[in-house]
Amino acid sequence: MHRSIQDHFQDRIRLPQLRERITSPAEAANWISNGMTVGMSGFTRAGDAKVVPLALAERARREPMKITLMTGASMGSDVDKTLTEAHAIGRRIPFQADPVLRAAINRGEVMYVDQHLSETVELLRSRQIAPIDVAIIEAIAITETGAIIPTTSVGNSASFAILADKVIVEINLTQSLELEGLHDIFIPKHRPHREPIPIMSPADRVGTTAINIPPEKIVAIVITEKLDSSSTILPPDAETDAIARHLVNFFQGEVQAGRLTESLLPMQAGIGTIANAVMTGFIDSPFSHLSMYSEVLQDSTFELFDAGKLDFASGSSITLSAQKHHEVFSDIGRYKDRLILRPQEVSNHPEVIRRLGIIAINTALEADIYGNVNSTHVLGTHMMNGIGGSGDFARNAYLSVFATKSVAKNGKISSIVPMVTHVDHNEHDVDIIVTEIGLADLRGLAPRERAKVIINQCVAEPYRGMLNAYLDEATARGGHTPHVLEEAFSWHARYRETGSMLPQTCALSEIEEEIRDKELA
Amino acid sequence: MHRSIQDHFQDRIRLPQLRERITSPAEAANWISNGMTVGMSGFTRAGDAKVVPLALAERARREPMKITLMTGASMGSDVDKTLTEAHAIGRRIPFQADPVLRAAINRGEVMYVDQHLSETVELLRSRQIAPIDVAIIEAIAITETGAIIPTTSVGNSASFAILADKVIVEINLTQSLELEGLHDIFIPKHRPHREPIPIMSPADRVGTTAINIPPEKIVAIVITEKLDSSSTILPPDAETDAIARHLVNFFQGEVQAGRLTESLLPMQAGIGTIANAVMTGFIDSPFSHLSMYSEVLQDSTFELFDAGKLDFASGSSITLSAQKHHEVFSDIGRYKDRLILRPQEVSNHPEVIRRLGIIAINTALEADIYGNVNSTHVLGTHMMNGIGGSGDFARNAYLSVFATKSVAKNGKISSIVPMVTHVDHNEHDVDIIVTEIGLADLRGLAPRERAKVIINQCVAEPYRGMLNAYLDEATARGGHTPHVLEEAFSWHARYRETGSMLPQTCALSEIEEEIRDKELA
Repeated sequence: MHRSIQDHFQDRIRLPQLRERITSPAEAANWISNGMTVGMSGFTRAGDAKVVPLALAERARREPMKITLMTGASMGSDVDKTLTEAHAIGRRIPFQADPVLRAAINRGEVMYVDQHLSETVELLRSRQIAPIDVAIIEAIAITETGAIIPTTSVGNSASFAILADKVIVEINLTQSLELEGLHDIFIPKHRPHREPIPIMSPADRVGTTAINIPPEKIVAIVITEKLDSSSTILPPDAETDAIARHLVNFFQGEVQAGRLTESLLPMQAGIGTIANAVMTGFIDSPFSHLSMYSEVLQDSTFELFDAGKLDFASGSSITLSAQKHHEVFSDIGRYKDRLILRPQEVSNHPEVIRRLGIIAINTALEADIYGNVNSTHVLGTHMMNGIGGSGDFARNAYLSVFATKSVAKNGKISSIVPMVTHVDHNEHDVDIIVTEIGLADLRGLAPRERAKVIINQCVAEPYRGMLNAYLDEATARGGHTPHVLEEAFSWHARYRETGSMLPQTCALSEIEEEIRDKELA
Repeated sequence: MHRSIQDHFQDRIRLPQLRERITSPAEAANWISNGMTVGMSGFTRAGDAKVVPLALAERARREPMKITLMTGASMGSDVDKTLTEAHAIGRRIPFQADPVLRAAINRGEVMYVDQHLSETVELLRSRQIAPIDVAIIEAIAITETGAIIPTTSVGNSASFAILADKVIVEINLTQSLELEGLHDIFIPKHRPHREPIPIMSPADRVGTTAINIPPEKIVAIVITEKLDSSSTILPPDAETDAIARHLVNFFQGEVQAGRLTESLLPMQAGIGTIANAVMTGFIDSPFSHLSMYSEVLQDSTFELFDAGKLDFASGSSITLSAQKHHEVFSDIGRYKDRLILRPQEVSNHPEVIRRLGIIAINTALEADIYGNVNSTHVLGTHMMNGIGGSGDFARNAYLSVFATKSVAKNGKISSIVPMVTHVDHNEHDVDIIVTEIGLADLRGLAPRERAKVIINQCVAEPYRGMLNAYLDEATARGGHTPHVLEEAFSWHARYRETGSMLPQTCALSEIEEEIRDKELA
């Protein structure tokens, strides 16, 4: 190990006897055996375990090795890709966003359990899913008492470390020691002795700044200098600008009606280009003293800080573009007193979301005329990423917004369809649908009314006419939620056959392109 | 007014000047004008406004009258029926279970807004849906300060009375004054000043025993002696016994595995025959010191009390068969210290459900091979009752169980289908599916695995073979959640055409029969 690393050890591993546990990634990976359940840090590519998983993949190329891999959310650093290529993942929980892993999931080779992100550690804590054997947690440092200080995400790291038999720590020297104090680790008690989570505002600190575990559980420590993977979001474009404008106009109306103040209510924004662009749109809004209670903090969070629009942001991870990552983390002190990173169980907790009254803005893969939303399955069958935290937020929000561009693939796909092929969020949990065409306010409306508003506000021709024709035919049959069942998926079937939802003509392989078009994280 | 009524007035209306507000139902109904939003007490036919609504219907036969009707949940006393027949309901929120109203909804004549039962008053409080003009609340009495003491349900009554401009009270002399003290009225504060709901156990009392409003808002008081409508549940049968047995066996396994103690965790049971029968099944179980944190308390709750199995039950209403109603309410003192009735916002609150770790048992209209559940729409289009509280509980439960008989209509309908035609609860919120055939434990399983377990455990021939054939064909096409979209609803289409999901032969009118077969409350 070279000198610059050794210089950092006293700051980075403050409990002296733990320094003896420093080892190589390959040695650390030897604590993992075939069949184990491994919990790794990592949420939206931030703060993920980076080197021990790759060493494990290396081993898996030589010997039988199939693990259940649990994380916070998506991993960067090609961890999911490399482990998949080594056939080392048997089961994957609760979220992923890697093209190679996704393909293996869709071939049925990896059993993927797509979960609400707030729920995974509840299931672990109550032993309703397999226990964690080994946790691999990225840290900026280990304290004098052996507590682990996470890096750019908390995710499920705290509960993984607490519940695992053995813990491997990746000390990442590229992650600044200035991050210390950013995290707020709160772990709900076991039932039936659980108490309220005492968060009454996004800025409330209710836990500890490090993950307390018995130091003897730390069986290996690896030193790394590998950067977080950058986010893959695209810059705002004409359509995302229009979506943002529709939303800003809507919120201005809410303020005028006296339902919201100019600081609105704490906001959540889903991961990805559209949600990030929407939040960027608030820079040029009349609102001020905004706050966020979200899961992932993206470029837009820091743009809003810099614009003086945002007072505070609570999340579970910070995932930035390469440029913004450099700007923010080279001087994190500038933002630190306005930021908290929490366990995803707390950032996404129904109790807190309902109490604070979150404005939730998430992305739809497709929505239907009644306001049901598909966030996950291309053509109803092929998994893209996972539901993530969208269900935690949409169900319990003060206001649940879903945004999408009205079409994909140059108009060959309509994002508004007669019936979604997979339901992640149903009509009960969707208040607003917004596209670049316009915004549909569905509050207090019955399904037949919702259909008219969605079609008229959010859809352009020729799909508008096609949807109106479908609605007319369905309504003639009657029902609270009229449908023509044998036609409900005909647009998807046509797309599958001809490469377009329009009544004319491409190939199945383009589904893959569409996935890339709509790529999240 | 005859003597027995007058004798009660001092006990029933304790603020003397309010006695001057006693009037006839017709006079009271005159406070309601065409176009108003009216909030009425009533939850699962219990504690409903009974006479003023019928007087309003009488008026609606003579003059233009169309209201938005909001309640707790379903009404008894033919209120929904009579108002529908008088064409007096323009919009109905958030739940109903009346055949005449249902038919009007399905014809598109009444705009029905089907909501999670915990959410309606949130929307009202934040003025996201039309404000309540007049509230009509059934009460056992009005206190010295003008506070309203509800009867056999709380439902949305407290917030309706607090938020309404004017309040009409129906003092029901058949509802015993002994009910006083049973209710626990807790109203969350407006955001952003909201605090935790301090309930840590089903028995925790956190509010007041009456609904506090300024007495001057009470514009009319009507005296009634009309009984609550009885519940329409059927007694347990061989199939519901089998379902209960499978569940008791499952929970014994959980206790043996150390995941639960013999008092399990607080239980919720949906309304209707199946959920009631399942709870009755716990009488002959090895469990003890059970508790309930539920919305409606049915016959089984009191059977479990009498059997010494149940320590405490919290709910929002008490809905009983005629026989059980007589037994319980003729001596309510026997149960009173083991019962609390709460606002449905609290009984169904995500915060409390998640904290307590509820075992939620609800009924599916149909479920699919991946564990998505349709609770509301016959053939995907025709509304039966509404989602009710099932979403509040299933999403946030410790364990979410959905029960259904494996077939309906003498086997012509399979309750397990390739794809549900409407999704109320998706795969993320369904842990257990149980039919009389068996129980599918879906925890920690990926969709392809869920399908095999559901088909093998919950379905009998010939549907088992048909579902396996569908799954094989779908799996050959690939995907995380394999489907053959153009075949996914073919069973429903066949039923619509032939009267049976089996590949042979009836008429569309039988859908109505099926509705009656599966009738809830």
